[in-house]
Parts: sequence; C-alpha cells; structure tokens
Amino acid sequence: MATPPKSFVVPSGASMVTFRLASTPRKYDKEKGGWKDCPSSFYTVVAWKMLGENIAGSVSVGDPLMVMGRLRVREWEGDKQRHTVAEIEAISVGHDLSRGTSAFRRVVRPHADPLPPDTVTLTRTR
Amino acid sequence: MATPPKSFVVPSGASMVTFRLASTPRKYDKEKGGWKDCPSSFYTVVAWKMLGENIAGSVSVGDPLMVMGRLRVREWEGDKQRHTVAEIEAISVGHDLSRGTSAFRRVVRPHADPLPPDTVTLTRTR
Amino acid sequence: MATPPKSFVVPSGASMVTFRLASTPRKYDKEKGGWKDCPSSFYTVVAWKMLGENIAGSVSVGDPLMVMGRLRVREWEGDKQRHTVAEIEAISVGHDLSRGTSAFRRVVRPHADPLPPDTVTLTRTR
Amino acid sequence: MATPPKSFVVPSGASMVTFRLASTPRKYDKEKGGWKDCPSSFYTVVAWKMLGENIAGSVSVGDPLMVMGRLRVREWEGDKQRHTVAEIEAISVGHDLSRGTSAFRRVVRPHADPLPPDTVTLTRTR
Repeated sequence: MATPPKSFVVPSGASMVTFRLASTPRKYDKEKGGWKDCPSSFYTVVAWKMLGENIAGSVSVGDPLMVMGRLRVREWEGDKQRHTVAEIEAISVGHDLSRGTSAFRRVVRPHADPLPPDTVTLTRTR
Repeated sequence: MATPPKSFVVPSGASMVTFRLASTPRKYDKEKGGWKDCPSSFYTVVAWKMLGENIAGSVSVGDPLMVMGRLRVREWEGDKQRHTVAEIEAISVGHDLSRGTSAFRRVVRPHADPLPPDTVTLTRTR
Repeated sequence: MATPPKSFVVPSGASMVTFRLASTPRKYDKEKGGWKDCPSSFYTVVAWKMLGENIAGSVSVGDPLMVMGRLRVREWEGDKQRHTVAEIEAISVGHDLSRGTSAFRRVVRPHADPLPPDTVTLTRTR
Repeated sequence: MATPPKSFVVPSGASMVTFRLASTPRKYDKEKGGWKDCPSSFYTVVAWKMLGENIAGSVSVGDPLMVMGRLRVREWEGDKQRHTVAEIEAISVGHDLSRGTSAFRRVVRPHADPLPPDTVTLTRTR
C-alpha cells in the first residue's frame, strides 16, 4: 500500500475506498546470481462496501498486500493533459503472510441483500 | 481453509506447511435472479519456510483465504489405487478482507540472504 | 494437446468438445545455469458450442496451446476407485505463437442468439 | 489487435515487435437481462524474437487475441506532459478460437540454445 486509503460515499449511497498500490517485481540476475528489483508499477485500487470498510480498518501504508480484481486502463483529458490510470476494481484484498502474521476477525454482514429502495428506517432515540 | 495446517521438516532442513483448501465458485442464476453455489473444488496447499510458519500461526479452519502460487496435478499409484491431487505451491497467502478484518504484524527475516556455503557457525554452550 | 478432441452432443442439444492437455513448466536450474522441464500436469479441457467446433477443426495432438477458463477439481467414486480430475471449462483457446505461425479465419456466427426451442427449419433443395 | 504490429531491432541485435491491444469486457445487465460492453482498455504489447516474428507474420488488425505475459505500468515525462502506458511483455500470444479457426504451422527454432560467444561457425559451400 503506497498511500493511505481514502473513503467516499457515492450518490447512490454506496461506500467506496481507494488507495495507490505499488508492485515491484523481482528478476533473477543470471550474471550476478541473485534477485534484483525491477521498476515499480502503480495502480489505483477501488474497493466497494464491506471490502472497502475492512481495508480502511485493517491496512496501513507499507503493508504487503495481495489484490485480486478486474483491471482497466482509464484515459481522459483534463488540465490540457492526457491522463491515464491503471485501476483495479478489487474483489479480494489480503495481507501477504509471506511477510508477516495476521489476526483475522470475521465480520458478520447485517443484511446479505440490500434493502429495497423504498425502505423506510425509523430510529427511535430517547 | 478446510483442514488444520500440518508442519513438516524435510531432510534438507527446510520447514513446510500443508493444508486442504476448498474453493466454492458462485454462478449467477438468470432464471431465479440470484447467485448460487457450485460444487467445491479441493486443493492441497504447500507453503515453505516463513510463509508456512506464518500460516500456521495465523490461519484457522474456516477462514476465507486468498492463495497465489504454482498449480500442478500430481498422479501416483499406491494401495492398488490411482491417486490424483491438485496441489498449489504457494507464493502468497492472505486472509480475504471482503469477509473480515485483520491485524497484521510484519516479521523481520533474520537473514535476508542465505549465508555463503563455507560459513562456519560456532555455538558455545555451557 | 495430449489427446485428439472428442465431440459430444448433450441432451439439451448443445455440442461439446473435450481433450487432455499436458502442461510442462520449466524451472531455472541455478547450479547448471539452464532451464529444465518439471513433471507434466494433465487437465481435461471442456469447450462448448462454437469454441469446441473450432478447436475440433483447428488443433492436432502435439500443438502448443494457450487455454483460459474456469478450473474445477471433480471427484467421484466408480469401479471401486476414487477418481479425481482437474477440469478446465474453456472460455478461450489459441495456438501459442511463440512456437509457430497461424492463419486465422473468423467464423461468422449465424445466429447471435439461439432460436426458440419450437423453431421449425424448412430447407428446400432441388 | 488495435494497431498493426511494428518491428524494431534493439542495439543488442534482438528483434522486437509491438502493437496496441484493446480489451473490452462485457458485463451482465441484470435489469435488461443481457450482456453489454464496458469501455475498452488499451495496452501496448511487446514481444521479443520468434514470438514477435510469428505475430508479425500471422496477426492483423481486428483479430481476436489471447495475450499472456508480465504487466507493468510505465510513467515518464516528455513534451511537458506526463505519459503513462500499461505494457504487457508477452510470453504467449494466440488467436482466440472462440471466434474463428486457425491453421497452425510449427516453426523449428534453428538453435534451441544460443551458441557460446566465442563459437566459430565454418560452413563449406561448393
């Protein structure tokens, strides 16, 4: 994780978390007989709802992560510049146990399915 | 994780951890308009050295996992039967944060690189 | 491709092609300074409809292939034995151009959507 | 394949082929009950030596391809702009047989392993 996670709520009411991820592959150097770092690639990771909330509550900058999801390359014009970003819509994210230990706690999802759009929620407080 | 992790030390002195992993894909049911579970596939996961030790110290049966590694299908004869196992030699394993939270603690590897082959280790004991 | 493709028609009327695929990873041998073959893994590939027909019309035993699809490990009892097979339901299959050249010919799908089950097709020939 | 393949020879003498690849995922639209196209992502594919030569000799703009390789996101400054490109260093490329047929012809590599640098080749001709 290269930047702290930022949380958003989109107009539909869904919560979203984004952060930058750096991926640094290693290559075997036949001449020197060891592994060396290649240049890093940077991705913007987008995580929705419970996955996003759990990332925001569990992950810090510098943590080694596994990310699985759908990749897309988005391009747009703005500020007289062409912008390109490699974005991963995450399906699963986890701490990489090849680098450390983790204490996991399952979160019970309060509603497996979203409430219908016309649901009214009444909350009575004293 | 479908079975508890078992630890071994192979003759070369390297430590190894294995466990069974169940993977249950879901399929969108167009007629009923919802997701349904497909039959589970079972894999034997093999993890070496620090990754194996961290799995043994962090993961319990029932935990939702991400596993990345090299797949092989091994076949052998024994007990008058043909045996087949789908085995993943793990490179990274992590708890899936789409299902819960995790408290991660980085493990500092005592020696990043192996000692040269002619190293002599002297240990003084009383 | 390790065995010739076999064609079937399932009761629903859909056509299916299956074949055995051998995958032989190579590993860099640091001591000898070269690549060596690891043991092969065998998969049963299943391809439906047009993909299956194009495989049957294009691929021969020994051809180097790329296969992308959904993996499952199926287990069943039969003949007093436990059987296990690693099966790939293929989404895409192609000849690997790192090993040769290919002349491709796009197939125009006659009907993007299947005809309703009660369709009657009348063909008049002289 | 979104642009015709371009061939280069790098200073070391190795040949390289590059082209642009468009990837257009489809998404199931639950409300309309059908599949719809998502925006395309564009990648620059780089292929070395025999793979590159076979691509240049086999593939045309518009052909449906499978590409397997290593992804990296490269960024650099130039022309007062920040440039970003998602690049795939291809290991295997093939025509997707879910869309058509292919006639494959294996290319025999003249030397499986490179000759040592001080090799002298003597060829006697009449």
